[in-house]
Amino acid sequence: MRIRVINPNTTAAMTAVIDECARAVAGPGTVVQAVTSTMGPASIESHYDEALAVPGLLAEIARGEAEGVDGYVIACFGDPGLYAARELARGPVLGIAEAAMSAASRLGRGFSVVTTLSRTVGQALDLAERYGMRRFCLGVHATDIPVLELDDPKVRTVIADACRAAVAADGSDAVVLGCAGMADLCAHLTEEVGVPVVDGVAAATLGVQSLVTLGLRKSGRGEFAAPPPKHYTGLLSAFGTDGAVQ
Amino acid sequence: MRIRVINPNTTAAMTAVIDECARAVAGPGTVVQAVTSTMGPASIESHYDEALAVPGLLAEIARGEAEGVDGYVIACFGDPGLYAARELARGPVLGIAEAAMSAASRLGRGFSVVTTLSRTVGQALDLAERYGMRRFCLGVHATDIPVLELDDPKVRTVIADACRAAVAADGSDAVVLGCAGMADLCAHLTEEVGVPVVDGVAAATLGVQSLVTLGLRKSGRGEFAAPPPKHYTGLLSAFGTDGAVQ
Amino acid sequence: MRIRVINPNTTAAMTAVIDECARAVAGPGTVVQAVTSTMGPASIESHYDEALAVPGLLAEIARGEAEGVDGYVIACFGDPGLYAARELARGPVLGIAEAAMSAASRLGRGFSVVTTLSRTVGQALDLAERYGMRRFCLGVHATDIPVLELDDPKVRTVIADACRAAVAADGSDAVVLGCAGMADLCAHLTEEVGVPVVDGVAAATLGVQSLVTLGLRKSGRGEFAAPPPKHYTGLLSAFGTDGAVQ
Amino acid sequence: MRIRVINPNTTAAMTAVIDECARAVAGPGTVVQAVTSTMGPASIESHYDEALAVPGLLAEIARGEAEGVDGYVIACFGDPGLYAARELARGPVLGIAEAAMSAASRLGRGFSVVTTLSRTVGQALDLAERYGMRRFCLGVHATDIPVLELDDPKVRTVIADACRAAVAADGSDAVVLGCAGMADLCAHLTEEVGVPVVDGVAAATLGVQSLVTLGLRKSGRGEFAAPPPKHYTGLLSAFGTDGAVQ
Amino acid sequence: MRIRVINPNTTAAMTAVIDECARAVAGPGTVVQAVTSTMGPASIESHYDEALAVPGLLAEIARGEAEGVDGYVIACFGDPGLYAARELARGPVLGIAEAAMSAASRLGRGFSVVTTLSRTVGQALDLAERYGMRRFCLGVHATDIPVLELDDPKVRTVIADACRAAVAADGSDAVVLGCAGMADLCAHLTEEVGVPVVDGVAAATLGVQSLVTLGLRKSGRGEFAAPPPKHYTGLLSAFGTDGAVQ
Amino acid sequence: MRIRVINPNTTAAMTAVIDECARAVAGPGTVVQAVTSTMGPASIESHYDEALAVPGLLAEIARGEAEGVDGYVIACFGDPGLYAARELARGPVLGIAEAAMSAASRLGRGFSVVTTLSRTVGQALDLAERYGMRRFCLGVHATDIPVLELDDPKVRTVIADACRAAVAADGSDAVVLGCAGMADLCAHLTEEVGVPVVDGVAAATLGVQSLVTLGLRKSGRGEFAAPPPKHYTGLLSAFGTDGAVQ
Repeated sequence: MRIRVINPNTTAAMTAVIDECARAVAGPGTVVQAVTSTMGPASIESHYDEALAVPGLLAEIARGEAEGVDGYVIACFGDPGLYAARELARGPVLGIAEAAMSAASRLGRGFSVVTTLSRTVGQALDLAERYGMRRFCLGVHATDIPVLELDDPKVRTVIADACRAAVAADGSDAVVLGCAGMADLCAHLTEEVGVPVVDGVAAATLGVQSLVTLGLRKSGRGEFAAPPPKHYTGLLSAFGTDGAVQ
Repeated sequence: MRIRVINPNTTAAMTAVIDECARAVAGPGTVVQAVTSTMGPASIESHYDEALAVPGLLAEIARGEAEGVDGYVIACFGDPGLYAARELARGPVLGIAEAAMSAASRLGRGFSVVTTLSRTVGQALDLAERYGMRRFCLGVHATDIPVLELDDPKVRTVIADACRAAVAADGSDAVVLGCAGMADLCAHLTEEVGVPVVDGVAAATLGVQSLVTLGLRKSGRGEFAAPPPKHYTGLLSAFGTDGAVQ
Repeated sequence: MRIRVINPNTTAAMTAVIDECARAVAGPGTVVQAVTSTMGPASIESHYDEALAVPGLLAEIARGEAEGVDGYVIACFGDPGLYAARELARGPVLGIAEAAMSAASRLGRGFSVVTTLSRTVGQALDLAERYGMRRFCLGVHATDIPVLELDDPKVRTVIADACRAAVAADGSDAVVLGCAGMADLCAHLTEEVGVPVVDGVAAATLGVQSLVTLGLRKSGRGEFAAPPPKHYTGLLSAFGTDGAVQ
Repeated sequence: MRIRVINPNTTAAMTAVIDECARAVAGPGTVVQAVTSTMGPASIESHYDEALAVPGLLAEIARGEAEGVDGYVIACFGDPGLYAARELARGPVLGIAEAAMSAASRLGRGFSVVTTLSRTVGQALDLAERYGMRRFCLGVHATDIPVLELDDPKVRTVIADACRAAVAADGSDAVVLGCAGMADLCAHLTEEVGVPVVDGVAAATLGVQSLVTLGLRKSGRGEFAAPPPKHYTGLLSAFGTDGAVQ
Repeated sequence: MRIRVINPNTTAAMTAVIDECARAVAGPGTVVQAVTSTMGPASIESHYDEALAVPGLLAEIARGEAEGVDGYVIACFGDPGLYAARELARGPVLGIAEAAMSAASRLGRGFSVVTTLSRTVGQALDLAERYGMRRFCLGVHATDIPVLELDDPKVRTVIADACRAAVAADGSDAVVLGCAGMADLCAHLTEEVGVPVVDGVAAATLGVQSLVTLGLRKSGRGEFAAPPPKHYTGLLSAFGTDGAVQ
Repeated sequence: MRIRVINPNTTAAMTAVIDECARAVAGPGTVVQAVTSTMGPASIESHYDEALAVPGLLAEIARGEAEGVDGYVIACFGDPGLYAARELARGPVLGIAEAAMSAASRLGRGFSVVTTLSRTVGQALDLAERYGMRRFCLGVHATDIPVLELDDPKVRTVIADACRAAVAADGSDAVVLGCAGMADLCAHLTEEVGVPVVDGVAAATLGVQSLVTLGLRKSGRGEFAAPPPKHYTGLLSAFGTDGAVQ
């Protein structure tokens, strides 16, 4: 089984972190590979960034389909382009917010999300609602650490403090990490905070592995069938069905 | 006051229809201009099309901002890129689904949506939920007419029949047209169907005009503040803050 | 186009404020006239007041219908008698809570309401739910200033402080003013508070103007059809279809 | 204990039916008296009728308070004026929709409502939502029998058929009768339909009796405290605190 | 009429308190008897305790059915085994949480629950949702007093303080007592706290008395019909239809 | 890693089916063992059966804890005793309804449930709501085949027909099998029906395996902490902390 974990921003250092966390949990028969988007923003910190990260993500899905990949993880907590990716892929596609929230919902009454910038809090709440996890999501808390500064060792204490404060304020049973760039902090934070801390990269990798093992893929008809053939023009002409990408 | 109505697909003939419907309702002091996206799909009929229509839409918003436009309409019933557009624009941005559903909610107990392809029904329901209109949206009905065939005179009867059937099935008080390409059918359908039929292009144009008149624009801080400066690479490098588009 | 703005309390001084705010935003072809109810409470500060303001409101709607008025605004934040008014009127009827919340929902993630007495907070929440705006309404905050003291210049500071506190507590992007008597404070408060402040009188006036321009009126059948003819007796006999009011 | 059952329409024949059904269930120590409103519509079949039935209802509450009545039933399925009545009364006030839906929610998974005119269906759904009963209310079905024709023996078969059809269509466990004028059909219909049929007049009478026995009355502060003193003018001047009614 | 109030824990002293509170409100023709479960936990303070209190509860229902009891109260705030009991009983069965929340919902905008251990808060919220009372339940507050220490006079002050704090924090109009063991504190707390305090034991007793008076019992078909005959084995073999209990 | 799959009814033949389906998907390092409850009903087809299956389930959890089992699956679609089991177990516990619905929610817009008896439909809807899956659950359809007749080859056609009818009626993208006894039909039905068919036994086994791999277990404090020590009496005395079971 081959699973591709797509980092939809263009920062390779972050892909390396993601790759390690995904590989660490995959089963013996599963080949996991993380890839970096070749176009778009260096990090995703606004609706604008997120929208413009999607073409690069979809190009990676198209490439994976050509290579026979069995399933995909979208390794950004906004789960950008999830529905479009599901149309394009034959196998399952999971976002890390979706997978992390689902895992956390099984650990107790509810979870807190600890994330990066305040401006992304609304998007996390929207995703919780989309996935039916709103009842388990007791709060979303921003640290206001930019995504690309998460690898600074100094921020670890800030994040641990934010997790502890979130658990106390929300009365929650678990913490969901609100950014793929926090994936490698997960084990450390679980120890520090005293409640389970959930990293979506690992959770989604196992979620995809499970769906592939179960033989479950989207129905070939309906909303998530392959997109209808279409002529594309301009900068994005390669994304049309007569272009090079798809 | 200058309002720009953006057709996020690349089909100029559809823009002409949109332009006429928007101009027909604007007040005397309002200059309305409809524009066609310069990149992406010829029509929007899947999540994939929608995601890839967003860069072209955002390029038009950026151009409008440079030209001092006061407000924008996104003239596609999926309201693609609405949140990203709101970050980018200083003035108000409305989607046609948002505006049409809101207008229709004021006409009675609830409305039916009549749209194009079955695969877009889910997206219409998601938008109804996003805007708080789910309680007014009594049903979404597909005609399975492709967007680019809406200008065929023969389809008018099909759409009128679908509207009548929707009203009967849902017990609704109004019909919302689920595609910008249906805008010019609105008056005719209202007569044919016997309940008010709402076109989002006209509704959103007046919605933007009203917000501009009221002096209401998004807060400069928080989730919809201008996106943080960011380096973009590859095909989309021009969308970064060091590029030509923004 | 003729729009009538009905102040459902009997205080003419408040009608004057309302009249000015409504006229200030209407388009060149729109004749706006604010009128004062001729029966009922001097101000509306309880469910009891609200219920007893409705006959006077409906009498004004009936009068407007006789005079060929095109649409109506109910200028009290409880939107009293909205559904009954919609039955009676041929053209659109909007409440100021409905219009203000809808406008505010387009400015960001959510809004706060700042209102008069604590005892009206529940009603504001009920209206937010009725209109589908509950998800955007992040909080309702009372100043405990009685309606008829709103014209005291001293209370402006109290209201500005309440708006600032509400925005901070709720993390909201806009403020909705919870009383028609605050309409003239809107511009001032927008400056003071630093987020958009929405007055429902102006918003509803433009909302009605837009619906009339769009040619949208309730369906003639169903829940909001004209009320069935009925004999009325006693104090309210004139409201029956054999009486003088209707 | 004295309970007053208020028929908010002006038709005394309907009050007689209501009186009998209420008395039939009251406990030995409870004195039940049904009264007819002295002003407003002969029957309540629209939002307009309902709004204009409220002053008469509130006059009866005020009279009851002067006479030391312990609790009240509002004997119309729209529960008109419930919140205003709760402000005015010291003891409990229940609407028959509220009481019937609550009782029916305890009999199984859900109930159907069978009511009079189609145009009242929306109001029944709104009430179900207000009382938290929306999850139990599996459908609302109109017979399109006018309220004042319910005493025609011929309609009994129509209503029984509607009840059976509703139970079959909704898969419901009980039927709630959607009009006070159906109260005397309850026992007969239970036999005919084969599931429990709930009459709100009897249910609300026992609900009020229970609350009085428990010593439960609204808190004297907050939203349902007595309305603030207020000057009323015109036709309704007697409803002001300086008038004769209150 | 015979009503049986079942204490599903095995502590007879608590049954005595319950018995007194139930008898105090029953009508003259109603014979109320409280009984103690003969198997399971001494008090119910976890999901585990609750699950294991259900067999004893069901054994009491079966005994009651054999004796011709007309209706039942489940006197534990988790309402354990309610649905199973409704299948088994011919007459109505009410839980005390259900009855208390319903009564409290009629007293104002909303209520607070004051309960025993923090770990039971989630269950109270789940019940509020199940009964449609979530919109009225403004908060659930734990005192962390174990159930079997509630008869210690010293805890009365702690509970009164918790009620006052809950009302202030939630802005609620009433308090619901979250444990059958608090039933005898109800009158005292109403005086102390200044808002109505609702005891579910008394409320449910009158709720069952009302349903029996109304002649309302579950439908004999559907989800709550008598359980299908079944062979049971092991420790619980007596619960099968070939055993001694049923 | 050791996972125990508990069949909470006492029918060993059904356990054999469950065992095979669970083992078929487990990873190479995972030891899966299905066990049969030693007390209670032969099949679970009512709330009564479900309630009385829980003690046997909890006895198996207690036994598993003594043996160092890492995680548990509750192999009955009502997920009986889930919360109590989570208190008792140190590792994760998943119900098959929970796991199946979650997996199915990732395959498209929504799923249908096809189950056994009509009387269990309500319970399936309640579980969908509990897990946040109500928005994905487009319908629950009963075949009225008793649980213990599912191994009759003749019923396969009935179930396949029910699946096809459900997909057509609901417009769903997947089918969730509503009984552990259907687990072995999953692959066959997927082929027959043409949309993915999800078996909860396999889904839950992989769900538990994933949570154990991720190192995620409930927090040791709060609602799902180990139940407080308690004296149990009568038939269930062994379940107390001074007994043999725990």
